[in-house]
Amino acid sequence: MDYFNKTYHPPGTAPGTLTSSGDAEEKLSIHLVDYTSEAYQEKALTAPDECLPYLDRESITWIHLQGNAQVGTLKNIGNVFGLHPLALEDIVNQGQRPKIDEFDEQLFLILTMPLIRDGTPDIEQVSLFLGENYVISFHSGEHDPFGPLRLRLQKKSGRIRQQKADYLLYCLLDLIIDQGFPVLEEISVEIETLEGEMLDLNAKQSTLSKVHEIRRELLLLRRNLWPQREAINDLLRSENPLVHESTLIYLRDCYDHSAHILELIENYREMAASLIDLYLSSSNHRLSEIMRVLTMIATIFIPLTFVAGLYGMNFSHPNSPWAMPELHWYYGYPLILGVMIAIVIGMVIYFKRKNWI
Amino acid sequence: MDYFNKTYHPPGTAPGTLTSSGDAEEKLSIHLVDYTSEAYQEKALTAPDECLPYLDRESITWIHLQGNAQVGTLKNIGNVFGLHPLALEDIVNQGQRPKIDEFDEQLFLILTMPLIRDGTPDIEQVSLFLGENYVISFHSGEHDPFGPLRLRLQKKSGRIRQQKADYLLYCLLDLIIDQGFPVLEEISVEIETLEGEMLDLNAKQSTLSKVHEIRRELLLLRRNLWPQREAINDLLRSENPLVHESTLIYLRDCYDHSAHILELIENYREMAASLIDLYLSSSNHRLSEIMRVLTMIATIFIPLTFVAGLYGMNFSHPNSPWAMPELHWYYGYPLILGVMIAIVIGMVIYFKRKNWI
Amino acid sequence: MDYFNKTYHPPGTAPGTLTSSGDAEEKLSIHLVDYTSEAYQEKALTAPDECLPYLDRESITWIHLQGNAQVGTLKNIGNVFGLHPLALEDIVNQGQRPKIDEFDEQLFLILTMPLIRDGTPDIEQVSLFLGENYVISFHSGEHDPFGPLRLRLQKKSGRIRQQKADYLLYCLLDLIIDQGFPVLEEISVEIETLEGEMLDLNAKQSTLSKVHEIRRELLLLRRNLWPQREAINDLLRSENPLVHESTLIYLRDCYDHSAHILELIENYREMAASLIDLYLSSSNHRLSEIMRVLTMIATIFIPLTFVAGLYGMNFSHPNSPWAMPELHWYYGYPLILGVMIAIVIGMVIYFKRKNWI
Amino acid sequence: MDYFNKTYHPPGTAPGTLTSSGDAEEKLSIHLVDYTSEAYQEKALTAPDECLPYLDRESITWIHLQGNAQVGTLKNIGNVFGLHPLALEDIVNQGQRPKIDEFDEQLFLILTMPLIRDGTPDIEQVSLFLGENYVISFHSGEHDPFGPLRLRLQKKSGRIRQQKADYLLYCLLDLIIDQGFPVLEEISVEIETLEGEMLDLNAKQSTLSKVHEIRRELLLLRRNLWPQREAINDLLRSENPLVHESTLIYLRDCYDHSAHILELIENYREMAASLIDLYLSSSNHRLSEIMRVLTMIATIFIPLTFVAGLYGMNFSHPNSPWAMPELHWYYGYPLILGVMIAIVIGMVIYFKRKNWI
Amino acid sequence: MDYFNKTYHPPGTAPGTLTSSGDAEEKLSIHLVDYTSEAYQEKALTAPDECLPYLDRESITWIHLQGNAQVGTLKNIGNVFGLHPLALEDIVNQGQRPKIDEFDEQLFLILTMPLIRDGTPDIEQVSLFLGENYVISFHSGEHDPFGPLRLRLQKKSGRIRQQKADYLLYCLLDLIIDQGFPVLEEISVEIETLEGEMLDLNAKQSTLSKVHEIRRELLLLRRNLWPQREAINDLLRSENPLVHESTLIYLRDCYDHSAHILELIENYREMAASLIDLYLSSSNHRLSEIMRVLTMIATIFIPLTFVAGLYGMNFSHPNSPWAMPELHWYYGYPLILGVMIAIVIGMVIYFKRKNWI
Repeated sequence: MDYFNKTYHPPGTAPGTLTSSGDAEEKLSIHLVDYTSEAYQEKALTAPDECLPYLDRESITWIHLQGNAQVGTLKNIGNVFGLHPLALEDIVNQGQRPKIDEFDEQLFLILTMPLIRDGTPDIEQVSLFLGENYVISFHSGEHDPFGPLRLRLQKKSGRIRQQKADYLLYCLLDLIIDQGFPVLEEISVEIETLEGEMLDLNAKQSTLSKVHEIRRELLLLRRNLWPQREAINDLLRSENPLVHESTLIYLRDCYDHSAHILELIENYREMAASLIDLYLSSSNHRLSEIMRVLTMIATIFIPLTFVAGLYGMNFSHPNSPWAMPELHWYYGYPLILGVMIAIVIGMVIYFKRKNWI
Repeated sequence: MDYFNKTYHPPGTAPGTLTSSGDAEEKLSIHLVDYTSEAYQEKALTAPDECLPYLDRESITWIHLQGNAQVGTLKNIGNVFGLHPLALEDIVNQGQRPKIDEFDEQLFLILTMPLIRDGTPDIEQVSLFLGENYVISFHSGEHDPFGPLRLRLQKKSGRIRQQKADYLLYCLLDLIIDQGFPVLEEISVEIETLEGEMLDLNAKQSTLSKVHEIRRELLLLRRNLWPQREAINDLLRSENPLVHESTLIYLRDCYDHSAHILELIENYREMAASLIDLYLSSSNHRLSEIMRVLTMIATIFIPLTFVAGLYGMNFSHPNSPWAMPELHWYYGYPLILGVMIAIVIGMVIYFKRKNWI
Repeated sequence: MDYFNKTYHPPGTAPGTLTSSGDAEEKLSIHLVDYTSEAYQEKALTAPDECLPYLDRESITWIHLQGNAQVGTLKNIGNVFGLHPLALEDIVNQGQRPKIDEFDEQLFLILTMPLIRDGTPDIEQVSLFLGENYVISFHSGEHDPFGPLRLRLQKKSGRIRQQKADYLLYCLLDLIIDQGFPVLEEISVEIETLEGEMLDLNAKQSTLSKVHEIRRELLLLRRNLWPQREAINDLLRSENPLVHESTLIYLRDCYDHSAHILELIENYREMAASLIDLYLSSSNHRLSEIMRVLTMIATIFIPLTFVAGLYGMNFSHPNSPWAMPELHWYYGYPLILGVMIAIVIGMVIYFKRKNWI
Repeated sequence: MDYFNKTYHPPGTAPGTLTSSGDAEEKLSIHLVDYTSEAYQEKALTAPDECLPYLDRESITWIHLQGNAQVGTLKNIGNVFGLHPLALEDIVNQGQRPKIDEFDEQLFLILTMPLIRDGTPDIEQVSLFLGENYVISFHSGEHDPFGPLRLRLQKKSGRIRQQKADYLLYCLLDLIIDQGFPVLEEISVEIETLEGEMLDLNAKQSTLSKVHEIRRELLLLRRNLWPQREAINDLLRSENPLVHESTLIYLRDCYDHSAHILELIENYREMAASLIDLYLSSSNHRLSEIMRVLTMIATIFIPLTFVAGLYGMNFSHPNSPWAMPELHWYYGYPLILGVMIAIVIGMVIYFKRKNWI
Repeated sequence: MDYFNKTYHPPGTAPGTLTSSGDAEEKLSIHLVDYTSEAYQEKALTAPDECLPYLDRESITWIHLQGNAQVGTLKNIGNVFGLHPLALEDIVNQGQRPKIDEFDEQLFLILTMPLIRDGTPDIEQVSLFLGENYVISFHSGEHDPFGPLRLRLQKKSGRIRQQKADYLLYCLLDLIIDQGFPVLEEISVEIETLEGEMLDLNAKQSTLSKVHEIRRELLLLRRNLWPQREAINDLLRSENPLVHESTLIYLRDCYDHSAHILELIENYREMAASLIDLYLSSSNHRLSEIMRVLTMIATIFIPLTFVAGLYGMNFSHPNSPWAMPELHWYYGYPLILGVMIAIVIGMVIYFKRKNWI
């Protein structure tokens, strides 16, 4: 997940300007689902205008656009569905902040869907339009995330086929938000592994890097999911006629999940910070331990070595009584051994008193 | 207490889908209490439908479901009590965020009850429905926590038998929330023990692990109890006709306890963080102490040892006047001892000036 | 001051249950003051019911209950003054969170009064009831804190005798809140002493413990005084008919003092945290200093000592030209001294370049 | 970017006092653009009064003043455009806090435009007046930032020529705010470089300085852009008749970008703090590693060296049996070697048990 | 600047009690200014009652009281101007929290004026009363801060003489608040100096003390200026008839400056905290560097010294083949030199692999 993932035009570009993302060739698939409580129809379209007959009908129409589009196609899509240029720009410029915009006859939502890609959490943008009896969804990632929903529509499972377009919007929202749970479960497993390594004093450099990476991931998830919660809250309070009273209880459930995910993210962030604290204090503890042993060995033996060195000196003078007479005393050697033992005992008493042993 | 304790369906599952938690066999006991100010009846039921005759009466009916239920039973329960599918899903999927939902003729509450399990704090979910004259409670843990309440009902103690179903709800709430006090008292005792160990400079690696664990427990408690306080606040402000004016003063007391518990949690979290600070600075202090001793001993004796080593060299040349003539001076040895004492005095003066002694 | 100072009943106890605090014998003194702008009467009562004739009069009656009461006496008090069972329970269960409850004809306040006990800050609970023309105050500590107020009433000093019962309540509030100032002044003196010790590099282990203790005290003061400020704010906004317009300006002054005290607490908390930072960085600085000296001495003398040791070896072979011929060179010794001096010079240059000297 | 970049008059100066910034000579260029949906006119003016004929027309007039003005010119400008003295003072005293002021027939905005100057982020003040059919913009930097906008006006690209003056204001706002994206992209690149250096354990002193500098830059950006977001929010909610309903959706987009930029800044600040944590813990880890090696080598060899030194002593006495008899034992040398090997083995076992090897 | 600077009465003192600050003798100067747009009069008064004739006139009267007053004089002042006893108490008890109180015909403000005293920031209290056509100001410091304002009044500079008393109040407010800018500029200079010292690795113990002192000063400034901003905000929203519509735009400018100052304080606080982080990590870096050098030197030479010491031992036995036969080998010495070189090479390879060289 990149630190900076917003696509933006050079400042000063006219609002609503469209530029296809990079020089990538067009890879756009348009998938139409049209249903009433009785009928169900699914169809892959080749051009946006094929949708037009469906939009005017009483039935609920869900058009899903998957992949990258060229500027021409984009403008075409905008015209067909009557989309606001600013909304269209936001769809193209990936990395938008989640939000909800209320246009005259449409509700426009930008959402971010968390997912696990190659073992690390990532974010993908999903854009949704809700109209009187249609929903249009945009997703530029590789995999179409809405397969399970289409299956439910086909199978008539749950109440989805009896409901209006706003319920379909809720189902999409629910699916997008709930992707957060497996992502956070994955992160929680990683945190517990790292915590285990630290408590077993097995922390390596790589443990630290991983803690840093998790903090980074959580920070980026939070940046993307916080405004999403606010957007859903705005949706709940908007009293927009496109969202019916009966759907609100479901959207409140969405809001709840969104809030739950953010609370988990906050929790994990604090746990990651606490892991750093734990690491710092354990490593301090360990360093103290090591230094204590070194100091004890060194302070005991350095004076002893000095004494031994002292009597290893070769001062000699045939007649001088000052030329290391101790070396020639009868009890010189045991005396000096006694001095050394006395030094050791003194040191040990000192350490005991300092509470180091 | 796990980092991630929410049970969730794969994203895209229809809302209200029920799956029994794991392949565990059904272990559900249904306990009915029915009372007016005069009469009191207690009964263990075998099937949910046996409640039906009680629900319609004027008397207050409290049905408590304890344990795990299979999908079939769950759906049956939902039908009998007219529960909303989303609520039913939340009851089954343990690890929900506390909340309050207002349905047409019911009030639905998810609460988390703190408790001490095997010496460490944990959380269990309790779900409550309040209807016109009944309360339904769900709890999937091993022990039925509501025994004391049933006793009060039997004994007619307090005003509980004179009151409506909302007062029974308050009593349940009060019992659940107040479980927080013994849990926090337990934690406060642990913090004081750890504080004592640190102030006595007895901190071991295990002390650090325990501080980390307490931070983790407090974080998880906060995550679960914070939305609970908000839910009770929502209940206070909801002006739902199911909750009577006269019960509000009691619910405000509940809110107060909830707030008190959260303030204690916040307090303990800051104390735990302060303990880490205390540990880091004490251990720094100790390390400085150790290093100071090592440095003093080493800087005094290393030069001395060098001097001793110097005159332990075996340079000799029959005629050379340069072959360590000092060794053969008349006062060579006392001179060199004098040099050594001078070095020691110099070092001590240096340390004094550096304020190390 | 304890981490956990709330008295609570086992969860599930009926609300309003009274249990006398511990098995301590009853030590309750009831003190009645009754006054109008002209008359003043003070009386020690033996039983709560003796108050009854005073409550109905036009005069302002202030009943102060000091000490512990047995259950029987408590219930009696509750009946005499018509106190709500929940309020009565809060009075008995010390360690409540400050709050204000509005009952039908009474206003009930729980307050916490900071004080210095045995040199450390502590908290005591004071409970107050305000009625039409009476105030009832409860305090279970040893010393009656309201002596100065009674003196003012006797002496007719200030406007207190001309005012209603709400002004008496204000006077009590003011006295309780202002106890915070001497407590905080005491703490500020302690912080300045600790700051001085740290800046003079005189920090001992006990300095750290004291900083930790002050953080703990401030945290606990904040926990108790924060909700008190909110309670007074609620009182200001309550528009309760028992509190007259003219008293509001005085209560606003109370609120102001309360806010001032909390701001001081916050300030002192941050200063204490900054002291820890200061300690950590000074001790780091000191450790660096120590290590620098050790390293310089050691890195200079260790190679020298090796060289000296080298030529202290006893290799000898009658004919071998390889058996330490240097020892027998004419200029061997001055040469080796030269090598040693070269090593010292090299090291000093290295340290200079590293900016260590 | 300076810590303190506000220009201010000595306290007590009359509000609206004008002093030209420094003794710099006047370098002011006045650029006028006048357009309707059909006509377009661009003109460099020499004196402010030349604008007057344009202000009264139906066409939209945009006057841009670039550079420093002398006091006389400033007063002249104020008179010509009817600017409030306080606003005029704020234009001159660079380093103002972003804000919006509503005057009788004008809307006055102070904005801060982030930019990269000499490789580091900086801030420049832009001041805008919106009138019924004119916009006046002030910018004192070297480069006129509004070139792209003038081009769009010339080329009639987008809807800008069909709209009122408030849409022109939006275009200016949009350009100013969007300058934040390239600045933050630049910073994100720097953070990633630093992160890489730290994770590769290549952190040098300069890495730390750069992290500090980035924190400083982010702090200063936040200080300047936070009130800007609030100002735009105030503009959205002001219901000022100068801002038409149809422009609000565009201004909301501006607000969104502003919020996005602030969230990025917050994110980067936390990442920078996390980098410091990462550095501290890695460097702790590394220090531990180093000390462990030192301690092992030292604690193994120091006792050995002592033993060797011991038997390098020269005690000798012709007849004394105490004069280091070990030296003359038949197996003395191998025995002492054995003792040394035993010491080494003992140490290694000790280290293994301490988990150091 | 002291931690605790509030003067307070012993708790329980009657509200409005006046005690002159200390036993200092009275040093009060009363300065009257009376003006209309045409006339201007300035006069030093000896007694408060001399103001009375001016208060009733149409002209604007500004009375400034500078210095300490005795109780008698204070009461006199209170009577003359009709000041509320609580306000009078706040004027006397220096160290109040900034606030605004609305009395019947007066507006009472307590403000804190930052200033630099003896090179360090400090705070002085200014109290203001606004009446229909008069302003009374109190300041107990040594220097009268309002000289520049009186000069403007004399000189008729700006619009001040045309305006009402509320504009005079604004001018006083503006002067008091703007004193914050030079104070903060001074602090910013100090922070930049400290930052420079740290980045140049020149940090001494005194650098750390200064950072701590700046944090303390900023904390105390914030504590005093935060409620001041709130007070001005209250004034803006109060809709008090004493403050006219036309003055509000000026007061909003005051609020803006107040907010700007607080944002600068917050910024500087974070920069100071970041400096501590920078110091800690640099000093860690430096310590690591030092230890690395020590460890390399020590681990290379300690084994060598041991080997040298080994062959300095004096084992000898006339016939034993075990008595250090190496010493008498033909190639003994070059062999042992070879072993030493091998040890050095081994160590260097080890350090290379550990990435220490």
